[in-house]
Amino acid sequence: MPEKSQKTRFGMIKERHGKTFENALKQGKMDEQMIGLCSFAAGTKGFYTSSCCSGRIILLEKNGEAKNKNAFHRKWHRTVSARELIEGVEENKGGVLWLKLDPFILHIGCKNIRGANSILEAMKKAGVKRGGIMVAQKDKFLIELQGTETMALPIKENGKQLAEKAFIEKLLEKANPLLEKNYARLRALENEFRKTLK
Amino acid sequence: MPEKSQKTRFGMIKERHGKTFENALKQGKMDEQMIGLCSFAAGTKGFYTSSCCSGRIILLEKNGEAKNKNAFHRKWHRTVSARELIEGVEENKGGVLWLKLDPFILHIGCKNIRGANSILEAMKKAGVKRGGIMVAQKDKFLIELQGTETMALPIKENGKQLAEKAFIEKLLEKANPLLEKNYARLRALENEFRKTLK
Repeated sequence: MPEKSQKTRFGMIKERHGKTFENALKQGKMDEQMIGLCSFAAGTKGFYTSSCCSGRIILLEKNGEAKNKNAFHRKWHRTVSARELIEGVEENKGGVLWLKLDPFILHIGCKNIRGANSILEAMKKAGVKRGGIMVAQKDKFLIELQGTETMALPIKENGKQLAEKAFIEKLLEKANPLLEKNYARLRALENEFRKTLK
Repeated sequence: MPEKSQKTRFGMIKERHGKTFENALKQGKMDEQMIGLCSFAAGTKGFYTSSCCSGRIILLEKNGEAKNKNAFHRKWHRTVSARELIEGVEENKGGVLWLKLDPFILHIGCKNIRGANSILEAMKKAGVKRGGIMVAQKDKFLIELQGTETMALPIKENGKQLAEKAFIEKLLEKANPLLEKNYARLRALENEFRKTLK
């Protein structure tokens, strides 16, 4: 009996996350580059994904210390043109505007430490450097994996541009290839998962 | 007998890391803000620290893709004056020079999953968002914890300054308080460790 109820607990968590993923997919809310990996996980017996982001270039408006006062002024899960970025910067009116390149972040769940270790092994093989088991409870193991390509700086404050247009364009010339590199790493991770997770 | 040899394996790892820490301390190689936490861990029965950094402002010279071609042009484990930073930027001659604020990173080891979970709990209580168990083997659990305050951008390329001096100074005005915030978080983490780890 205990064995059965244990299975049921993990099964319920997996099922719930599976439905959330299906709904996000139907509603077009999934990042394009994350769909393959999440679909694969949903189809396995022992794994599921919860929140994730494929990596992005954003303009983040910070209005004070608290994170809940941050607003996404622009968000792209793909490489960006100079025109798009400059337009985004010009249309911001207040707060401190940060230009950021965020790497992928992925939460993947499994039933036990054996499953968690197979994820950590796949992570290493794919050359992903950041990651670890964040929750280690009976029937509920949750692993966070993250890319390492980043850029982050304030470029505008209270409507006043701090960085010049030419410099922002130069930053974008560096940010776009880093984002591509991030997506390539994410694909490598998906490939390792497909080889080893069941 | 098996129980005894298990104890010995963990004990040996802890002892080795304890010696490395003691030597780093004697040679003045420890980051000032990390000494309290590492000393405390060394004095516990069940925990040790391995590599760690308290958080820093750096000028990193990148010479191509490979990480081993990166060189620390400047490195400060404290807040920095505009004069120091500008001087550092001006003295760089080649590669792509990145200005970075890196948050603290800490590796802490323990014997089993119970110990690992007590670290994850302390982490949450201290408001540290990034962290997880990176190695989960018999008698060898390793947890990585990291702060979230970051800044990262290229400011010079092949000896040519991309960002203007006034803008670099403006960035530093943002970076210094973020570094202080990072150190405050690290102190909160040390306090939680002192309350709960034995």
